[in-house]
Amino acid sequence: MTLARRIVAEGLGTALLLAVVVGSGIMAERLASGNVAIALLANAIATGAGLIALILMLGPISGAHFNPVVTLSEAWQGNVAGREVLPYMAVQVIGAFAGVAAAHGMFGEPLFFASQHVRTGPAQWWSEGVATFGLIAVIIGTSRSRPAVTPFAVAAYIVAAYWFTSSTSFANPAVTLARAATDTFAGIRPADAPGFIVAQLAGAAAASALFCWLYPAPRQPVAASLDALKTADYH
Amino acid sequence: MTLARRIVAEGLGTALLLAVVVGSGIMAERLASGNVAIALLANAIATGAGLIALILMLGPISGAHFNPVVTLSEAWQGNVAGREVLPYMAVQVIGAFAGVAAAHGMFGEPLFFASQHVRTGPAQWWSEGVATFGLIAVIIGTSRSRPAVTPFAVAAYIVAAYWFTSSTSFANPAVTLARAATDTFAGIRPADAPGFIVAQLAGAAAASALFCWLYPAPRQPVAASLDALKTADYH
Amino acid sequence: MTLARRIVAEGLGTALLLAVVVGSGIMAERLASGNVAIALLANAIATGAGLIALILMLGPISGAHFNPVVTLSEAWQGNVAGREVLPYMAVQVIGAFAGVAAAHGMFGEPLFFASQHVRTGPAQWWSEGVATFGLIAVIIGTSRSRPAVTPFAVAAYIVAAYWFTSSTSFANPAVTLARAATDTFAGIRPADAPGFIVAQLAGAAAASALFCWLYPAPRQPVAASLDALKTADYH
Amino acid sequence: MTLARRIVAEGLGTALLLAVVVGSGIMAERLASGNVAIALLANAIATGAGLIALILMLGPISGAHFNPVVTLSEAWQGNVAGREVLPYMAVQVIGAFAGVAAAHGMFGEPLFFASQHVRTGPAQWWSEGVATFGLIAVIIGTSRSRPAVTPFAVAAYIVAAYWFTSSTSFANPAVTLARAATDTFAGIRPADAPGFIVAQLAGAAAASALFCWLYPAPRQPVAASLDALKTADYH
Repeated sequence: MTLARRIVAEGLGTALLLAVVVGSGIMAERLASGNVAIALLANAIATGAGLIALILMLGPISGAHFNPVVTLSEAWQGNVAGREVLPYMAVQVIGAFAGVAAAHGMFGEPLFFASQHVRTGPAQWWSEGVATFGLIAVIIGTSRSRPAVTPFAVAAYIVAAYWFTSSTSFANPAVTLARAATDTFAGIRPADAPGFIVAQLAGAAAASALFCWLYPAPRQPVAASLDALKTADYH
Repeated sequence: MTLARRIVAEGLGTALLLAVVVGSGIMAERLASGNVAIALLANAIATGAGLIALILMLGPISGAHFNPVVTLSEAWQGNVAGREVLPYMAVQVIGAFAGVAAAHGMFGEPLFFASQHVRTGPAQWWSEGVATFGLIAVIIGTSRSRPAVTPFAVAAYIVAAYWFTSSTSFANPAVTLARAATDTFAGIRPADAPGFIVAQLAGAAAASALFCWLYPAPRQPVAASLDALKTADYH
Repeated sequence: MTLARRIVAEGLGTALLLAVVVGSGIMAERLASGNVAIALLANAIATGAGLIALILMLGPISGAHFNPVVTLSEAWQGNVAGREVLPYMAVQVIGAFAGVAAAHGMFGEPLFFASQHVRTGPAQWWSEGVATFGLIAVIIGTSRSRPAVTPFAVAAYIVAAYWFTSSTSFANPAVTLARAATDTFAGIRPADAPGFIVAQLAGAAAASALFCWLYPAPRQPVAASLDALKTADYH
Repeated sequence: MTLARRIVAEGLGTALLLAVVVGSGIMAERLASGNVAIALLANAIATGAGLIALILMLGPISGAHFNPVVTLSEAWQGNVAGREVLPYMAVQVIGAFAGVAAAHGMFGEPLFFASQHVRTGPAQWWSEGVATFGLIAVIIGTSRSRPAVTPFAVAAYIVAAYWFTSSTSFANPAVTLARAATDTFAGIRPADAPGFIVAQLAGAAAASALFCWLYPAPRQPVAASLDALKTADYH
């Protein structure tokens, strides 16, 4: 795939991911009559289901990272060329903000408005560290052994992580920045974003190191393995 | 497969899809004690689960479009013969109304009665455009790379789309027309249907153009690929 | 597989299916604080998840019918020997009652007690007919084209059918008889069971006829195809 | 895989499993406004989704037992060397407690605090016996016929078992011990743990005996089969 196609895929996929996360959060909060558990359950199921669709639909083009720490981890493993890291990360952030605006348009909200949702403190930073550790672990663990199941494993993990972390598991710096621009269910106060992002980087680094030791030898050269992923079907 | 079998499959599948959407909406609203979030969650899960079953059970015969914009997009890509477009679309609309009547029969409602549910305005039209863009994107993206996962990707996408759009994502002109004939949870006022359908056509056209650029070269000739889909199993 | 193993598998599987249906119904009703939508959602998700596990775990031995109308339909198609129909159906009924007793034991209820839950009338009979039509359609449609997905398609269908039918979709005469012996969430008044069973037989017959026309030519001889199902894995 | 890698994988996986179970229980109870059905639904969905991710991500390394009775059953079948049983079981217990502490850290609770949640009596012991019987049955049944689906079958089974047993299905001695150290939604009074563990051992033994009779002949030598599982993908 050409870089142009891959960049478009990363931007589009991250935009749709944010539209799902923010849009389903708005819908859930409006309908849930104040029962936050029902709102979060709908938000989590919508996000997991959306991830399955988005990763399956764009993974063969760009790898479907939609997440700067995933791109950094893949580059560190040698699966993404160094010169492509910045374009990937830039378009992920741009796409994330575009997705927030798209969701706001669907629900009659202003394009952007800063969140006032406080999310800070050691318990939430620890949560983001664990959440991102788990996400990178799932990606490396499954893509080195059976890449065809990675989309399902990632989506299932995120559904769990919405519930088992006190931060509801952002686990993604581009998502974190863009969610600072929505004062709705999924928002985070801009001042709290840096703490989340630092924790995410730490968790991703730990998982990358540990899982490259746990899964030392890909069954095939990395390039061939990636190529298989990109054109894989089940026949 | 003969055209007769394919037409029967499209009509039956669209009828069962509407029975699931409308029937589960009636059941959900009756049981939910006024909590619309719980009703929509049940409605979304039932629809997604039903889609998995219906696409797996009829996809090998007709492609399991159940949706005129899917048929138009497939025809534009050269995957459906031009002379089959009208029969497909006609039976989809007929099947959709039959499904609404079947659901009404299961819940003791009149065969048809016009909806009074207002669904209009730019936010909902934008929602329908985005929703249909995403649906066609999922179908083209997965069926050109790994057709065996398309049923799961489509169902997961629709579950997400019930929640991340303010219109709850009809994304289907036949469904839109038939849902105008039910004054229950899933209904839409007949006067509002044309706005939805225009938005759906626009979204489908945009996705068809973009995703044929993103996935330019099917790995095999289209006819062979379709044939593989129709008889695919996982061995 | 020997007939002894297959009979044990059918009995055990039907027992566990009833334990899931009845047990999760009791748990759901006790916890749901009177919100029947939440109770039915939990009941449906538990049943669908249980079906995935049970069909995957026992399908390679006995076909995992757990349902007399499935056995009758398979026998009519020539996939089950005529002399095995009665043993299959007998052990399904015995297993179903054992499963109800097992569930009652888990929740401190008497072994059996007749249901007082009224489920009757044309709307519910029509529901049972449609529900069983759909179940047999899913089984024939998927097992003739891609048998590896049948367990997932059947489970997904049942989740949808709990919601889109007014009867909550028993779709199984053995299940219907045994659920008459539990005066809990999942029960049915004994006097109402015959109406359900007649509707189930009619729906199953219609689906068997239609889907044997829709899928006329199995890709391989039936015996080989069944054998493939029984030892199938995804490699 | 070296024993070191397998031990790390078992410890890490069990820790993350407990973090999911306990963490999602805390989150669910805090948000559910006293509706225990919603809390248990979120807890069950999070646990099932987490299991899919964890088993897919670590199964190729250690088999992803995360459970002493699974290790015992595998050793009895000759799939795990006798000298590895104690290290597996030890690291599972250590990991389980570490996971509880990790979850408590995410929600600002003390590292450990004894549960006061009473879970005892014949109905709950019978529940644990049935629950563990079913879990071992699913593992043996699927891993001897189609090991690629085992992660999905196990996760689906546990979702069902949360609901169809009155004990909410611990089915795991390491999990039982560690959940005695959390006075939150998922806890169990320390004095009640032994009764659960005895019932789990009985259920596991019964399932191991029955399912080794039901599935007598693995299609390939066990070592080769395990090896296939460990490097399986779907191509």
